[in-house]
This record gives sequence, C-alpha cells and structure tokens, in this order.
Amino acid sequence: MTPFAPHVYADRRRRAAEQAAQAGLDGVLVAPGADLAYFLGHGADPGAERLTMLVVPAAGTTAHGASDGVESALVVVPRLEANDLQHHAAGGVEALAWADGEDEHAVAARLLRDGGRYAISDSAWALHVLGLQRTLPGARLTPFTTTLPMLRAVKSPEEIARLAAAGAGADAVFAEIVRRPFAGRRESDVAADLDALLREHGHEQVDFTLVCAGANGADPHHDADTTVIADGDMVVLDFGGLADGYGSDTTRTVHVGEPTDEDREVHDVVRAAQQAGVEAVRPGATCQDVDRAARAVIDDAGYGEHFIHRTGHGIGLTTHEPPYMVEGETLPIEPGMCFSVEPGIYLPGRFGVRIEDIVVAFPDDAPHAARRLNESPRELAVVG
Amino acid sequence: MTPFAPHVYADRRRRAAEQAAQAGLDGVLVAPGADLAYFLGHGADPGAERLTMLVVPAAGTTAHGASDGVESALVVVPRLEANDLQHHAAGGVEALAWADGEDEHAVAARLLRDGGRYAISDSAWALHVLGLQRTLPGARLTPFTTTLPMLRAVKSPEEIARLAAAGAGADAVFAEIVRRPFAGRRESDVAADLDALLREHGHEQVDFTLVCAGANGADPHHDADTTVIADGDMVVLDFGGLADGYGSDTTRTVHVGEPTDEDREVHDVVRAAQQAGVEAVRPGATCQDVDRAARAVIDDAGYGEHFIHRTGHGIGLTTHEPPYMVEGETLPIEPGMCFSVEPGIYLPGRFGVRIEDIVVAFPDDAPHAARRLNESPRELAVVG
Repeated sequence: MTPFAPHVYADRRRRAAEQAAQAGLDGVLVAPGADLAYFLGHGADPGAERLTMLVVPAAGTTAHGASDGVESALVVVPRLEANDLQHHAAGGVEALAWADGEDEHAVAARLLRDGGRYAISDSAWALHVLGLQRTLPGARLTPFTTTLPMLRAVKSPEEIARLAAAGAGADAVFAEIVRRPFAGRRESDVAADLDALLREHGHEQVDFTLVCAGANGADPHHDADTTVIADGDMVVLDFGGLADGYGSDTTRTVHVGEPTDEDREVHDVVRAAQQAGVEAVRPGATCQDVDRAARAVIDDAGYGEHFIHRTGHGIGLTTHEPPYMVEGETLPIEPGMCFSVEPGIYLPGRFGVRIEDIVVAFPDDAPHAARRLNESPRELAVVG
Repeated sequence: MTPFAPHVYADRRRRAAEQAAQAGLDGVLVAPGADLAYFLGHGADPGAERLTMLVVPAAGTTAHGASDGVESALVVVPRLEANDLQHHAAGGVEALAWADGEDEHAVAARLLRDGGRYAISDSAWALHVLGLQRTLPGARLTPFTTTLPMLRAVKSPEEIARLAAAGAGADAVFAEIVRRPFAGRRESDVAADLDALLREHGHEQVDFTLVCAGANGADPHHDADTTVIADGDMVVLDFGGLADGYGSDTTRTVHVGEPTDEDREVHDVVRAAQQAGVEAVRPGATCQDVDRAARAVIDDAGYGEHFIHRTGHGIGLTTHEPPYMVEGETLPIEPGMCFSVEPGIYLPGRFGVRIEDIVVAFPDDAPHAARRLNESPRELAVVG
C-alpha cells in the first residue's frame, strides 16, 4: 500500500500512548500484521514464529532505559530481521535485536515492568503471550479489543478516502456481476468472476467471494462450491478485500428470475433492517444500539430467530476489527468510525438474504448520521 | 491440498491425546491454521477473530459431558462457521457452536477443567489465550513448542513423500534459474523468476524468494529489491513454498562470473559446515548437536562471529515449525523428523553465503544418517 507520511505513524503511537495512560496501562504491545502496519508502516510477517513486538510506553513514561517509543519506534526484533525492519519502517526505529538461542521474552522484558499492565494485540501469538507471562509473572496482559478497542477504530480523513475508494471499487464489481449469467453456472464460477472483478477494480488482495445459492444462502458463511445456480434461486453475494491497504466488504442478495412474494417480503424486511441500522448511527448511540435497531425490524416481522449473527464489524487495514455492532458492546460510536451494517435472515433448507454496506459515522458532510461507502442499489436485483 | 484418509486425522488426534497424557496435561487446544489442518483436515481461517478451537482431551479422559475427541473431533466453532466446518473436516465433528454476543470463552470452558493443564497452539490468538485465562483462572496454558514439540514433528511416509516432491520441485527451479542471466538484472526480477518457476514446479503457494546480491547477502533475510546484480557479486538464493500442502525451503549461493579465492574459501567453509550438520543427524543426537556440528566448522575456520542464526528448523505444513536446530534445544532427533540444515557466513558490507537442504532423519533407506530432500549441486555455481 502507499505509505502515509512518517509523522502519521508517530502521531498514531502518540495517541496510543495517551490512550494507554488514560486506561491506567503501562504500555501497548503490538504484534506483526495490521496492528504493526498501523503503528510502524510495516507489518512484518504475522506468520513468523520469532518475536517481533513494538512497545509503546504509556504517555508520561519511557521503557526501561529506552525511549518513549513515539518519535522513534521501539521494536523488539529478531537479529536477522532488524535490517529489513529499519528499511521498511516509516521514520526512525530503535531496535532491540535478539539472536537465535537467546530467550526472546527475557530480551523483551527489559523494556517492561514486572507488575505492569499492558494491552497486547489480539492476534499476538500464544507462544509470546505465555512466554512474557512466564518471564514477568507479575505483569498483567489484556487484549486490545477489550482494553483499548479505540486504538484503530477512528479513521483519519486519509483512511476514510481509501475505504471509500475500496467501496467504490466494490460497487463497480456489483454493477458488472449482475449483468452476467447466473442460472446454470456454478457458485465457484461466479466467485471466480468476483475475484477477477475485484482485482480489476483496484483490489490488490481478495479476502472472500461468497456465493450462496438457494438453500446454501441459509448458511451465512457458506463457501462457494460446485452447486449449480438454478432459476428461482435467491443468491447471496458477499465479497471484499484490500484496495491500497484498506478493506471493502459488500453484500447484496440477487434473485435468478422473477421472485415470489415471499422472496420480496423477506428481502424488504432485511432492507428495512439495514436502513434502520444505518439510521441508528447518531450522536450518543452505542455499538449495540445499531445491532438492536436492525434486529428490532427483523424481530417485529417475525424472523428474529433467523438473524443469527451480529449486525456489523469495524473495517480498516483488516476486514474484521473493532468496533463490533453486537449486543453487549456499549462502546459509544465516535466520528470517523467505519464499520459494516449487515443484517440477514436465514431460512434453513430454503434461502438467505443479507444486505451489507460499510458506513462512516458522522462525517462532516452528514453530521447526524452515517454516510454509506457503498451505493450499489439495495432493491432486490433480478439476474438471468 | 489432497486430503489424507479420514483415519489419518483420527490417528493424529489419538497420538496427541497420548502425548498429552504422558506430559501430564489434561488436553490439547488447537487453533486455526496448520495445526488445525493437521488434526482436522481443515485449517479454517487463522486470521479470523472469532474463536474456533479443537479440543483433544488427554488419553483416558473425556471433555466434560462430551467425547474423547478422537473418533469425532470436538470443536468449539462460531455458529455461522459450523456448517462449513462440518463440510470440510475429515471424518466426524462434534461441534460446540456459539453465537455472536455469547461469551465464546465461557462456551469453550465447558469442555475444560479449571485447574487443568492444557497445551495450546503457538499461533493461537492472545485474545483467546487471555479470554480462557480470565474464564478459567486456575487453568494453566503452555505453548506447543515448549510442552509438546513432537506433536507434528515426526512425519509419516506419506508426508515425507510430499516433502520430497516439494524438494524435487525446488531442485528443478534451481536447475533453471542458474541458466538465466543475473548480471544487470534487479534482484526483484530474479525473485519474480523464482516465484514463477516454483509455481511451474508444483507449488500452489510461494512463501519466500530471497535474492541477496553482494553486500545485501550479509543480511540473512534481505528482501529482494531493486538492487542491480553486478558481475563479481555473490548472490544468495533462498526460496520455497507449499506443494500439495507441504513445504520446500532451499538455499544456494551462486557467483556472477569467476569467484575470487576468498569467495571460494568462504563458500567451502559453509559447504563443509552444512555437510557436518547433516552428518550430525545420527542415533542419539539432539537438535543442538546439529547446530553445534555445523557451527564448529565455521568457528574453526575463524568465521564464528559471522554465523548469526540457528542452523535449522522443522518443516511440514508450514515452512518453520519445531524442531529447531539451535543451542539449548535438547530434544532428541527421532526417525521421520524433517528439518532444514542451513549454516551461513555473513560478512557485513561485503557478501554472504548460505547453503540449505531439507533432511529427513533416519529414513529406512539410510538408517544411520539423514537423507537430503534437496539434491541441487552444492558446489559454488558460476552464473552469467
């Protein structure tokens, strides 16, 4: 992805340091992957077993004998990855390198306080969580999602612009796919089309291309398979990936040939629920309010037991991240949060319907509501 | 990848249950990715935030109110992934599904014993390790690598056949790449060739194509970049990926044009060290013996400070896994273990040399040594 200016990453680390201090933490421990890419401009390899970890001490503190991790990033890194890290990271890096055969957790512990409290990336490896706990038995680790869910949740205007571009690409994909034949083709054929179209429309990575025809649509995460799509099928299309580093995630449900009254009714309920979810994004609302608003429409229509998942999830450098629109999540919605609103109805053995858009909360041009980043038509499209 | 027969996965779970019992554990907790694919024939999505976890109770026990996890796999799974899991897993699955909004760790805890001891996948997410610890404060979790390093370390004949096929593919890649021009091309051009050749030779996934020319070779994990390769450069080529699910990982160092005496000397030292490492794989040897044998050759030649990484790593469904050939690893080598032997010398600002083969310990046709799964020539190749 195109990097942001180096100060962006230092600013993000500064915000993390402030959030950590406000939460009464000693610091933030960042693992390879999207979290590291967010704070360092370089994600390293999230599949590697050797410990790479960015340490951001809470504001007002420094790591033992080291910097505050803001102007220069403070990173524990395997010796043989140190050069590449210095090369790819945005801005300065203060690397604490460890060699094979050394106790990597003991090296990392030099930057930490036994008895300290640290938030750690959700996706940090068990190997390292347990290794740090063994080395610092008095330290307390908590995951980002429960302790610092806001770390990456509020997007900057530059990030929103990329999410909007990804959404526009996904809209273009949908506009093309509905012009192609469905009846007689396999789900996997349509999925391959979606994959190719996403790449044509700016995506460097495709994360999912769900095509769920007829009864397969009753399984929200059915993987496209060799099922042949038939006339009369409702077909759920859920596709997305990363465009210039930021995610798209769009669902539309189409019908092969003329829908029945029941098909239309179920689709109308989901469409109204999705609209209610989007409209629930207003000042003072919490994440669970969005879930409740969408769910109420489906409940009232008598389909409540068939809406079997949360209403949405945050999106940014990954296609699933905090905040989550789910009962029990009382996090207040803040301007700049970007997340999906995607209610559905799943009728076992028959069909499913889901409609999903990415929304941004309270943008400047729509101060009292969410603005959608997908504008594909939400009425039931009839395909051939 | 081509699945093995369903009984293979049940047999693997049975062995894990026995190893767990021998280690005094209550069970084994398996996360998505290679570990889950090994025990279930389906890896699910290691990047997903919702909890999916296979539970294998120790032999002689059962999970609370559930099965022993051997004949049917016992899996905690998000409700909306349950169908796909049942569909893709080899053999029967006893799914404990949880719904969005439920406490997934509390659901998993129904299968576990507070006060129990469990080994968990190295790559399990911090989110879930910390969630399980919060739910079961008396339970003790330890990572596979430190507690059950043998879980996937000994390969079956069928697995060794796939590793050998992957190695043969990598050999074919090397035979072709040395016939192509090096001087005047960028490292990234040669890397692109390696990527394409690996795919031509049976790899469905390419994990790395390091091309490290001249001074870049002094960085063991230098990523191929726009550096233009020049006459007189030593060039380290380290490439691999997955072929039918199993890994290849080969390194050869080539020279552009005629090498100097020093080039040849350093290469000869590394070649002798690699040979010594392979020959150290003998009955009664431990992993660190392999590291020591290779390192002794380099130390004796006066280059000890320039061999800055461990000598090797296991390989199978991933390209890095236990056992690790590193000082301090006293695990005994067992028949069927497959791992790399890859010493190197790195001269900062000048060049590097590394030679790497995958070996299988004590195969039937070579009872007292390792058999190499790579047979590309190990003398210094001169390229154009």
